[in-house]
Amino acid sequence: MSHPQTVFTQTEFHGPSLLLSRRSTIARATVKAQLQKLKDTGRYHCFSLKWQPIYDDRSRWPCPAPMYWDSDVAKWIEGACYLLSDAYDAEVDAAVRELADMIRGAQQEDGYLNTWFTIAEPGKRWTNIRDQHELYNAGHLIEAALAHSSYYKNNLLIEPIEKYVKYICTVIGPGPDQKHAYPGHPETELALLRLYTTTGNKEAYDLARYFVEERGNKTGQDGLPYYDWERRQRGDSPWTRSDSYQMHDSNWYNQAHAPILEQKSVEGHAVRAMYLLTGVADLVCLDELGIQSFARKGDYREALTRLWNNLVDKKMYLTGGIGSMWQWEGFGIDYFLPQGSDEGGCYNETCASIGVIMLAERLLHLDLNSKYADIMELCLYNAVMTGLSLEGTEFTYVNQLASSDADRNRREDWFDTSCCPPNVMRLFGSLGGYLWDYGCKGKDAYVNVHLYTTAKVTFPVEDEQIVLEQKSNWPWEGNVLFLLQAPTSASVTLRLRIPSWARGKFTLTPSYKSAKLEKGYLVLPSAYTTANKAFSIQIDGFQPRFISPHPYTNQNTLTLARGPLIYCVEDVDNPWEQDHFRNVGIRSDSEVTERDEEVDQIGERYIALRSACWIRTIDDRAELESGVEPGLSHPRTGVTGKEVLTFIPYYLRANRGGKGHMRVGLLKR
Amino acid sequence: MSHPQTVFTQTEFHGPSLLLSRRSTIARATVKAQLQKLKDTGRYHCFSLKWQPIYDDRSRWPCPAPMYWDSDVAKWIEGACYLLSDAYDAEVDAAVRELADMIRGAQQEDGYLNTWFTIAEPGKRWTNIRDQHELYNAGHLIEAALAHSSYYKNNLLIEPIEKYVKYICTVIGPGPDQKHAYPGHPETELALLRLYTTTGNKEAYDLARYFVEERGNKTGQDGLPYYDWERRQRGDSPWTRSDSYQMHDSNWYNQAHAPILEQKSVEGHAVRAMYLLTGVADLVCLDELGIQSFARKGDYREALTRLWNNLVDKKMYLTGGIGSMWQWEGFGIDYFLPQGSDEGGCYNETCASIGVIMLAERLLHLDLNSKYADIMELCLYNAVMTGLSLEGTEFTYVNQLASSDADRNRREDWFDTSCCPPNVMRLFGSLGGYLWDYGCKGKDAYVNVHLYTTAKVTFPVEDEQIVLEQKSNWPWEGNVLFLLQAPTSASVTLRLRIPSWARGKFTLTPSYKSAKLEKGYLVLPSAYTTANKAFSIQIDGFQPRFISPHPYTNQNTLTLARGPLIYCVEDVDNPWEQDHFRNVGIRSDSEVTERDEEVDQIGERYIALRSACWIRTIDDRAELESGVEPGLSHPRTGVTGKEVLTFIPYYLRANRGGKGHMRVGLLKR
Repeated sequence: MSHPQTVFTQTEFHGPSLLLSRRSTIARATVKAQLQKLKDTGRYHCFSLKWQPIYDDRSRWPCPAPMYWDSDVAKWIEGACYLLSDAYDAEVDAAVRELADMIRGAQQEDGYLNTWFTIAEPGKRWTNIRDQHELYNAGHLIEAALAHSSYYKNNLLIEPIEKYVKYICTVIGPGPDQKHAYPGHPETELALLRLYTTTGNKEAYDLARYFVEERGNKTGQDGLPYYDWERRQRGDSPWTRSDSYQMHDSNWYNQAHAPILEQKSVEGHAVRAMYLLTGVADLVCLDELGIQSFARKGDYREALTRLWNNLVDKKMYLTGGIGSMWQWEGFGIDYFLPQGSDEGGCYNETCASIGVIMLAERLLHLDLNSKYADIMELCLYNAVMTGLSLEGTEFTYVNQLASSDADRNRREDWFDTSCCPPNVMRLFGSLGGYLWDYGCKGKDAYVNVHLYTTAKVTFPVEDEQIVLEQKSNWPWEGNVLFLLQAPTSASVTLRLRIPSWARGKFTLTPSYKSAKLEKGYLVLPSAYTTANKAFSIQIDGFQPRFISPHPYTNQNTLTLARGPLIYCVEDVDNPWEQDHFRNVGIRSDSEVTERDEEVDQIGERYIALRSACWIRTIDDRAELESGVEPGLSHPRTGVTGKEVLTFIPYYLRANRGGKGHMRVGLLKR
Repeated sequence: MSHPQTVFTQTEFHGPSLLLSRRSTIARATVKAQLQKLKDTGRYHCFSLKWQPIYDDRSRWPCPAPMYWDSDVAKWIEGACYLLSDAYDAEVDAAVRELADMIRGAQQEDGYLNTWFTIAEPGKRWTNIRDQHELYNAGHLIEAALAHSSYYKNNLLIEPIEKYVKYICTVIGPGPDQKHAYPGHPETELALLRLYTTTGNKEAYDLARYFVEERGNKTGQDGLPYYDWERRQRGDSPWTRSDSYQMHDSNWYNQAHAPILEQKSVEGHAVRAMYLLTGVADLVCLDELGIQSFARKGDYREALTRLWNNLVDKKMYLTGGIGSMWQWEGFGIDYFLPQGSDEGGCYNETCASIGVIMLAERLLHLDLNSKYADIMELCLYNAVMTGLSLEGTEFTYVNQLASSDADRNRREDWFDTSCCPPNVMRLFGSLGGYLWDYGCKGKDAYVNVHLYTTAKVTFPVEDEQIVLEQKSNWPWEGNVLFLLQAPTSASVTLRLRIPSWARGKFTLTPSYKSAKLEKGYLVLPSAYTTANKAFSIQIDGFQPRFISPHPYTNQNTLTLARGPLIYCVEDVDNPWEQDHFRNVGIRSDSEVTERDEEVDQIGERYIALRSACWIRTIDDRAELESGVEPGLSHPRTGVTGKEVLTFIPYYLRANRGGKGHMRVGLLKR
């Protein structure tokens, strides 16, 4: 199978698009801004193994921030390598080289490679695999090494990393003298499988598979779940737990409460859950390819489907954000999807929706169904893209659907836990790989087009090559022009996603009577692609529409959407609003008008929407006078004079000043 | 000041009423059923100081159930003593005497009196005042002793308890060698103040006052908050915490996050919060009487008002239930009031609403305002009365507003933590004391009538006595007949509460033109009461009405209420319902009819309500087919054929079988 992180180089964003605009901003501004942050905070030099004062700060127990500095650096290297090929920068290049040298130098004799446990807590290696990110860091180092070797065409990073993997395989595994452990923060699994796919490293495959199969084993080590055994070894009470653990034994926090095959719903930390399932999907993909069989074949596929459905049907926000609970940065109960802090939650970490995109991409390999690509697009244009400022130097970590006085609609230039900023860089760096997947068997080639934009993919078919080009003004307009160049001998099948919000409405030009829709993809067989090297599809659904979350969420709200974009309101466009739009409503029968807009100075263009709204009045005075019945007699609310509300795409929020008031779901009548 | 627990003996329930019916059931059935449970579980003999196997079970850390057995026994003694005077029972009498003997025998040489730390963990006294209920147990022993001495007219329990208080005063206090501690579970404060009020024990007063003023001191012991200091003494990590603590340092769990004067909102464990504030109100009442001044006079009154308003305006359910969070049995954020587990919470412990009643009664002494009495009545007839089965032998601990598959509408005959059953006994035992307060200054007497029922109060005015009698069919009808007997020389002012739900509508007969309404009380001066020894008031509000919780709760629901009663629906009356009435709605413009009903066998009469309803349909199939947008396009819901819904008073739920489906708030259109 192919991974987007590997094949993205075959795709070129060869004309203007919103995606290219973001990717260029990241290449131009974000990479260097983050490099500066790495340097300012001490991260850049952590692999030099020099002690830094921050190592003494244990106020964040059990996981001080420097404990995952390795991953921050690794993710930056990975993202930088993805972007260097398109946007070479000597300073970035030099930094990557220097970091690679430092990483090589940080490796211990036995292969161990982790800065915290080498500098700050020597002798404590592998004593808290549950909480202390040791394997997580290893995973990101693997991904950095893969990106590095792909760009630099050398083994300077792959070599020490493979040595580290070999060492980890001596420590962890099924043997009687090994730790029967698995990552507290999954990620290592998918990294190991990418390593295997790229280099054929069989130990990496075996270790990933072991992690997946051992996870949640209730009698894994001396008759105990591994994390319990490990805790006892440390001499910790079961009631000694980090703030992320709601209760003692809350092993669902890191998806270790049950074997994956037995997990009924997605639980706990959202990023961990997504990375874990991405690894599982990778393993199933490899299994499909006949590379290796699971002990219990087939079941993992069922588990993936079950957990995906739970995620999308009951635990995802309209924006593609996931995770309503701040305490464990993860999932609440089914349908618990409040919009903001003052309603009881809403977290939606940027990384978590990046994880959804990664998982969806893997699932498309297992089951070409547009429902996965639809979610991939939803997350990309909304929950993820909102995480990056227009200038590329500011970020959000949490992406609520409504602001409140406690959590305003604002950005930061960095975070103590800074997983999200480099993750956006990694995703956009390899974004070309998510647009489509393709391949060939002899002369029979296919391209499955998941995302529309303006881009061109080139891939070999036997000794020649196929070039497929798409041109569109997505996400603003639904017309996509395709140009196909293929050897005359090749037989090319194209599959074009019809988004669910298009409601099955599209126009293919030239038309093709026997075109079939299979699981949300319009199939264009070689008969068509041979006859039509240029064709276009006009996809419907670019008129504004009203959407609502599931009724069981108790969110009696309406949201405007247009194409793949979810809209929100901000006080900067609606300065009359004083209370986070908490009492502002819209009607689904109102007229919605569109207006082309441009963000001053930056020149970013977008379509704003406008619609009449109503204001809920709450008779607090009546309440106070009666004093009594909590929940005074019905009705206590009224409706007053209308204003006109201006909506912008959610991804554009928190870029243009204002008081920090924002909302996605408005009251419904 | 007077306490209901002291003066209730002056009130007689001299004719049939719902309140008398419950009190009689408790006296007849509940007292003995609970005595049997005390015996079956080992509690009864804990004061014999014999070791029991359960003492070895430390699975519930840091507070195994036997750690608060002392309070279970004490609360039973207290309730039994309240009821013995009206309903003498030789077995109960003998048990109280035997328990008193055992308690006397359990006291240690130095005065210490606690079974757990004497039998199970000797040497660990006062090492975890925060979590281990040592002072809480002492408080309930004080209350038991007061009830015991009042009924038995001897000092058999008061004597050892006063000795225990004297001992505690050596351990805790402001001195340099004393612990600057305060109860982890407040209750001791109000018990000490009752002890002081009854016996004049000044040490008790001083200790209570110290507890209130020291609480939340951030530098109380060696520059640390007391609980932090205590934890360090134990050698515990800050991250070692019971499951009730959401995060480390969650000192709001037991209202120790800040001095009471600085607390902005009611937080944490709801029962603790109510008991604490009741103690504070007691102290302010005593202050008003000129007994002792606070260091910062006046401020505590303001704090009480602020916290009461937060409680009632933002954290109370329609039923008078409080506490939406299961994990800490307490408060969520403002307006977070989901109806049941499948919506994210709803706890409403019976004891917590009993605490509201106690607090409201105290506040009425400070500020005679019907808003306190209205809430007292709301809690009594709804959140509290629902905690006891019609037969008096089964209970609820948690009182949700909607059932779910995980938490059905059911009762138990006991709980491991069995605070609620004896608390209901205590409340109903002393209930007469909550109906009214009264007093005199020379010949000028007053009675403030808070609750309507059928009852008679007799109290002295100089050498003679006043008897005020009320007769009504409350809570079913609003007509209340009053008969006053008073010495001709006495001048009697009556104040009658006009409930807020009456919307100011009432009829006094004979009428009185210059009658004034002061803070929700109709004032009848001596001019009226001298001329009219018999009069009646007809209070409006007994037609069914629709109420809704505050809009910020996101509960788009309607609830039926009638007079002081909140109604609910149960599947036993509406057997067509299969999903906890989750998709059932009503309309506020629907006709509601009433029907007199009777519970078979038991003969309990009530008024049922009936109204048309509508059913929400959710097009889950459309959702699955589209697959995609979480929150499919609006509209996804529809409305189908009507059924007729039968409503019963919430207090009657879970008495007549059925599948355990119940709901208070139904969908609103």
